[in-house]
Amino acid sequence: MMKALTYISPGVIAWRQIPKPKLIKSTDVIGKVVATTICGSDLHILKGDVLETTEIAQKDPKKGIVLGHEAIIVVEEVGSSITKFNPGDICIVSCITACGSCYYCEKNLQSHCSGNEGTSGWIFGHEIDGTQAEYVRVPFGNTSLFKAPKGVSYDKLLMLCDAIPTSYEIGVKNGGVKAGDSVAIVGLGPVGLSALLSTKTLNPKQIIAIDMDDQRLELATKLGATHVINPGKVFASALTNKVMEYTTDLIPGREPGVDVAIECVGVPSTFELCQDLITSGGSIANIGVHGKSVELKLQKLWIKDCKITTGLVSANTTQELLDKVVDGSLDPSPIITHHFKFDEFEKAYEIFKDAKNTKAMKIVLTP
Amino acid sequence: MMKALTYISPGVIAWRQIPKPKLIKSTDVIGKVVATTICGSDLHILKGDVLETTEIAQKDPKKGIVLGHEAIIVVEEVGSSITKFNPGDICIVSCITACGSCYYCEKNLQSHCSGNEGTSGWIFGHEIDGTQAEYVRVPFGNTSLFKAPKGVSYDKLLMLCDAIPTSYEIGVKNGGVKAGDSVAIVGLGPVGLSALLSTKTLNPKQIIAIDMDDQRLELATKLGATHVINPGKVFASALTNKVMEYTTDLIPGREPGVDVAIECVGVPSTFELCQDLITSGGSIANIGVHGKSVELKLQKLWIKDCKITTGLVSANTTQELLDKVVDGSLDPSPIITHHFKFDEFEKAYEIFKDAKNTKAMKIVLTP
Repeated sequence: MMKALTYISPGVIAWRQIPKPKLIKSTDVIGKVVATTICGSDLHILKGDVLETTEIAQKDPKKGIVLGHEAIIVVEEVGSSITKFNPGDICIVSCITACGSCYYCEKNLQSHCSGNEGTSGWIFGHEIDGTQAEYVRVPFGNTSLFKAPKGVSYDKLLMLCDAIPTSYEIGVKNGGVKAGDSVAIVGLGPVGLSALLSTKTLNPKQIIAIDMDDQRLELATKLGATHVINPGKVFASALTNKVMEYTTDLIPGREPGVDVAIECVGVPSTFELCQDLITSGGSIANIGVHGKSVELKLQKLWIKDCKITTGLVSANTTQELLDKVVDGSLDPSPIITHHFKFDEFEKAYEIFKDAKNTKAMKIVLTP
Repeated sequence: MMKALTYISPGVIAWRQIPKPKLIKSTDVIGKVVATTICGSDLHILKGDVLETTEIAQKDPKKGIVLGHEAIIVVEEVGSSITKFNPGDICIVSCITACGSCYYCEKNLQSHCSGNEGTSGWIFGHEIDGTQAEYVRVPFGNTSLFKAPKGVSYDKLLMLCDAIPTSYEIGVKNGGVKAGDSVAIVGLGPVGLSALLSTKTLNPKQIIAIDMDDQRLELATKLGATHVINPGKVFASALTNKVMEYTTDLIPGREPGVDVAIECVGVPSTFELCQDLITSGGSIANIGVHGKSVELKLQKLWIKDCKITTGLVSANTTQELLDKVVDGSLDPSPIITHHFKFDEFEKAYEIFKDAKNTKAMKIVLTP
């Protein structure tokens, strides 16, 4: 048996005894979790927004489903097809489980992996038991784990499970950020701040950070934002005007506006704001998880030569980002605000849910 | 003096005498127009939708503004900086006037050229006198004209001024069409059919053509569409289902839907349809000129790893497309339905406006 944070029904979780996972397939790895964290999508599941997970939990309410899709593990047991890892290895568990050989994995779109009879891609804490537990079974270990380099803290490594690759792949790379660009980051939660950090590694000219919370804006400035705007403190049109002012005459002949706007909130107003901020030839990279349609102002945008992208992380840049962490050009640790022990899991969720007051960003949990 | 088709006020045009254009700058070319055509955007201007043009015409209603942005010319006179062309050369006039050296031209985004004190890019028949006349002044001749190869008909060359490059750059290239792809083309007007022809040069597996007009669908089949659907003859959901059926099991593990949907209409319903047709990792390339906002279903699309692009043609692929016309892999002539003489201009507009009944696609006018 082991202890795990299980989702039972909307709003109900419990830290309790359930059976310890076993190897099921030859491609599995069993790991002892040495650090894990909570993601905004865990809160969506907790509210009952993610129907697949709720249905799975309903089938076996005595067990529920273990939440979480981020962890650092020590490998305990490996299936017979595992060639890259051995018991005792410390590994980053990627939030995306990838078979490595299906149509989508070959397209480098591991988020849509179809290799495991429809249950690969984003499955941890969603369609199979997740990482908020003492032990976790990792399917397709060869292609879903990354060996941790020596001397890097679990805090930093944990940010490479999801938040940093999400912000880099879906924000920075999809948006096409490059040296000299002007970039707006709309929303400074853990993913927005991660986007700021990973944007900075590409040497943009400007990073304009936008959020309703002054403390987050202060942190953004410390982490490299060149301009910050609190939309709660200016009129909506004044917000756009400020961005236009900051981006005027950056280069002779260039129209004002940012080259890339990275949406990190997931509500209509922030996505609509991004449409007003980009220059001709600009991009909107949407990272936010949206629950509603938004208005797309094609009457303005059709002539603007713009690009809008969406996506779920594929975690195909984890090694590249890990190299940046090792060489010091990327340090995600300022995004971690709280540390708890496993038996404080329920308290950690309360603090994460109440981020507005507790100022929680990323919370690290260890045994 | 010369004869020209001038726009005077919303709904009012006239084929009449106005002064013949003269060289103004050293980078100008004066050409004798030997073939021109009418574009959907000329009809927008005619209706009074394009305010800049209406304002320019109002300033000098005795002259108005010459419409049109597509022409084949014989060079008559060149400014002192023109190095690439000589009197007597037959040239394609690009719909986009590009200085070749500003911020946007260097980015290969000539549609937003800022080189001529704010009046380059799409300016013919919009901000300066256009091509529907006996003579035309072409600014930045070195970078806005293409020498016509011998032995290619004016009909084919005319399609390279706007329709074919628009469909190729804003539809096919922005959408990322590649060999083996499944492509939907929504709307089969001149630009939609051009998109079909230029898509075909890249060897996709499927081209699914969608239009309300059976005659256009018949033509699409002749030109290479593998499937055609008339949405007027099926329920909306049945339309999507048909596309899903055609795209199921194309490759093991691939979700149904098209890789690229090219929107060639410019109304909310067709753009919204495109959102339902794409597979995960797919693209929507918008070519349509939109007058209204559309609903973007981000609640479905955020996780789909999709790309949406917009744009105005930059005409930076004209030479590439001209090569395809010369080698026979691209033949745009089936899109031309009518031929008139210059003194029949007003009649040609009537026939083009009434395309639903007259079945007009592209109309060629010659002296």
